[in-house]
Amino acid sequence: MSLQRPQKYGESFSQWFDWIITEAEIYDYGRYPVKGTGVWLPYGFQMRRRVIELIRSLLDEAGHEEVLLPLLIPETLFAKESEHVRGFEKEVFWVTRGGSEELDVKLTLRPTSETAISYMESFWLKSYKQLPKKYYQIVSVFRYETKMTKPMLRVREITTFKEAHTAHESFESSEEQVIEAVNIYSKFFDMLGIPYIISRRPQWDKFAGAIYTIAFDTIFPDKKAVQIGTVHNLGQTFSRVFDVKIQKKDETLDYVWQTSYGISERVIASIIAFHSDDRGLILPPIVAPYQVVIVPIYQENTKEVVIKYSDEVAQLLRKAGVRVYVDKREDMRPAEKFYEWELKGAPLRVEIGIKECNTNTVTIFRRDLNKRETIELQKLVEKVHALLDEISQNLSKRAWNEFTSNIKLVSSLDDAVKIVRGGEGIALLPWCGDERCVYTKLQGLEGVDALGEVMDYTLKKLNIDIERIKKLKCTFCGKPAKFVMAIAKKY
Amino acid sequence: MSLQRPQKYGESFSQWFDWIITEAEIYDYGRYPVKGTGVWLPYGFQMRRRVIELIRSLLDEAGHEEVLLPLLIPETLFAKESEHVRGFEKEVFWVTRGGSEELDVKLTLRPTSETAISYMESFWLKSYKQLPKKYYQIVSVFRYETKMTKPMLRVREITTFKEAHTAHESFESSEEQVIEAVNIYSKFFDMLGIPYIISRRPQWDKFAGAIYTIAFDTIFPDKKAVQIGTVHNLGQTFSRVFDVKIQKKDETLDYVWQTSYGISERVIASIIAFHSDDRGLILPPIVAPYQVVIVPIYQENTKEVVIKYSDEVAQLLRKAGVRVYVDKREDMRPAEKFYEWELKGAPLRVEIGIKECNTNTVTIFRRDLNKRETIELQKLVEKVHALLDEISQNLSKRAWNEFTSNIKLVSSLDDAVKIVRGGEGIALLPWCGDERCVYTKLQGLEGVDALGEVMDYTLKKLNIDIERIKKLKCTFCGKPAKFVMAIAKKY
Repeated sequence: MSLQRPQKYGESFSQWFDWIITEAEIYDYGRYPVKGTGVWLPYGFQMRRRVIELIRSLLDEAGHEEVLLPLLIPETLFAKESEHVRGFEKEVFWVTRGGSEELDVKLTLRPTSETAISYMESFWLKSYKQLPKKYYQIVSVFRYETKMTKPMLRVREITTFKEAHTAHESFESSEEQVIEAVNIYSKFFDMLGIPYIISRRPQWDKFAGAIYTIAFDTIFPDKKAVQIGTVHNLGQTFSRVFDVKIQKKDETLDYVWQTSYGISERVIASIIAFHSDDRGLILPPIVAPYQVVIVPIYQENTKEVVIKYSDEVAQLLRKAGVRVYVDKREDMRPAEKFYEWELKGAPLRVEIGIKECNTNTVTIFRRDLNKRETIELQKLVEKVHALLDEISQNLSKRAWNEFTSNIKLVSSLDDAVKIVRGGEGIALLPWCGDERCVYTKLQGLEGVDALGEVMDYTLKKLNIDIERIKKLKCTFCGKPAKFVMAIAKKY
Repeated sequence: MSLQRPQKYGESFSQWFDWIITEAEIYDYGRYPVKGTGVWLPYGFQMRRRVIELIRSLLDEAGHEEVLLPLLIPETLFAKESEHVRGFEKEVFWVTRGGSEELDVKLTLRPTSETAISYMESFWLKSYKQLPKKYYQIVSVFRYETKMTKPMLRVREITTFKEAHTAHESFESSEEQVIEAVNIYSKFFDMLGIPYIISRRPQWDKFAGAIYTIAFDTIFPDKKAVQIGTVHNLGQTFSRVFDVKIQKKDETLDYVWQTSYGISERVIASIIAFHSDDRGLILPPIVAPYQVVIVPIYQENTKEVVIKYSDEVAQLLRKAGVRVYVDKREDMRPAEKFYEWELKGAPLRVEIGIKECNTNTVTIFRRDLNKRETIELQKLVEKVHALLDEISQNLSKRAWNEFTSNIKLVSSLDDAVKIVRGGEGIALLPWCGDERCVYTKLQGLEGVDALGEVMDYTLKKLNIDIERIKKLKCTFCGKPAKFVMAIAKKY
């Protein structure tokens, strides 16, 4: 599909996003004849695979165990917890037939798996000795979205949902788990250079069935807030309903305490949204399918030498653990290859011509700064490792700078609404801590949503001194402020 | 779930299989309240993950590109190829509702993806220069099985379906692809020590929409044949219907030629079925979650020394790329740990007591032979690598010996039927090459199925000289024989 190349990156974000995921061969969207679904193309799939490997290694390290539960959840399970079913019933797909038969019990395509895993935990968990228990799975989940769908951001099949489910002996242990989960997700987003604000969602916006929800939001170039991860303390909501009972250390029986947390392919959308410029993507080396692309440049009489030298350089880098691709395509000029790999965001390009062969050098093009330099072959491996590190750090720094420039602490609701409606990003407001006063004031203000109470981690990151806030008044009701509330236009 | 430990391995296979996958914590089956679905448990999941990595590396090496297509296939796509839809319509699940709305177009849960990918290929493929093109995906596929379901063998959600789809400029190129696919699958099964017979399915048993189907079958301890992989030449069936047209080298337009091939989680069932003994599983090192399990054996006064030494040994092995687990669980005696890891099939167990610490040795228990030996620490890494290799080879040899002892070449249909009905395995028969004579003779013979024409690769492996066969008569019709037909009782 050839879309018109739109304005610069940053302008008309939505149009630019559709264009880049198509042109860079990440995700084919809008042609498959089921609304809200798309196809991961080979290049995008490799990026997605590395994102998955990254979160998998972080979860494994922290003692999570990977499992795989069935996709289909029968209505009898799904509807068992009333708050949960009310939260999801409008947005689930129903399987009602098998072959030519009507099914006795309708089946949902899982929108999330709390009900399925709690049911299984009622068989698996018997004693406090097994706890804490941390499971996770990486699967497709389904939502019958009725709002306008958008590739990777609002889809009907979320193909890269990483959902963790934990069980604990006590509420305290579940609270520690929430902190561990927040730390894991922070580390994950940090490794990808994706900036975020962490907040506690207001009660009216928490996960259906949870005691509370902690959310990670970022800001896209269109200045809207995008939820990119959530952590829920589920209390004993599901364990009571599904009878997940264990023997405690003191020999009494009790229901387990649970948490769950998830991230979706919005992570990949965020990588794309942040790490790009007018030429296209700039992929963080940790998830780039190729960290170095080598382009041999030759005439007919130098071809053999140049190709041989290119292969040697590739071999050298591969041995050092670098993901390399030598672009030997015959029917393309070097300039076309440059264009393509800049668009696809290869962090480093190595250009090799006869000059490089003769002088035992290579020319390196660094995608984040779009700058070239020539270096000696013997320094190549060290240099490439150093550059990949620098690129990661530089991308992260840029993204955080851009992000924080879109967050403003203000002291009146009018200013805050101006910021949000004016497309300037997130507004932070001194707040008393009573959610009702936020609810009352924001009701009827279209396009202005409460993200929630900003967490300490984010306040520190943004250099906001909570003691100073406490000297101010709540922007919503005028009582003394104790916390910071974030508001924004949400995706 | 605690099932009664059944008779020995090999007797009452089905009962034994249910028992082992539960006790070894591979797959939780029969409790989740949707018929024909199960849960991959952490230990089983790790084995499954390594099986996936193995096939992924083989497909990647041969130039396949991984993609991910939507799960949902609209009826309008699914029903476009008439032979295909007739073959599958009785066994698909239908999504008919989203939220509280009836859907305009019903959606199937993919039973396989030829229709979805061909539709996309009509956008993607334009020129012979892009060909051959080889895609694959690893996904759940769904079949509304009405026969009795069995864990991993006949399920409604096949969670580990590895389906490849290729496109070619000519029929010849698609024929070469079939050979490549057969070679890849042979290599894959060889690496797992799973024996197989390769045959060309009779026309009445080919994939719905294919020109022909090549199948891999193995024999389980109950002497039934199990299909573990299939390769289809699809001709232009789907490319015509979905208009996948390319410009050829000679500038004419033509539909692409396609193949597809797949393997399911029956591969994992086969690993379990073949590589076990009365004590439990014996996992091939290549897919074992832990290749070495270290069990420290100590008294209170030697604990510290023994644990420290155990950790050092583990470190040594990890550095050498071995997957190691040190079993430090406090509330279990060493004998209980031995029992558990023998059941779960860890290929090697290292036992470390104070004697080993004092003499700089370790005691290694080899699971395939159930034998112990004590060796010097400095030889450990080399020894472990050698033993893991030996175990792989030994498991493979054993499996092939068992397998070939269950295949018999006979010269009368009566003898063949006796073999099949007597639970002795697969019978091979000289055959003229006309499928009608097989069809006529087997019609009405319950429990006796034609696997198909045995391929050269298998004939060689079984030391069957086709020239000798050609001197015999067709067992079905008496005309001169040219080929070998395999018959068996199928799963």
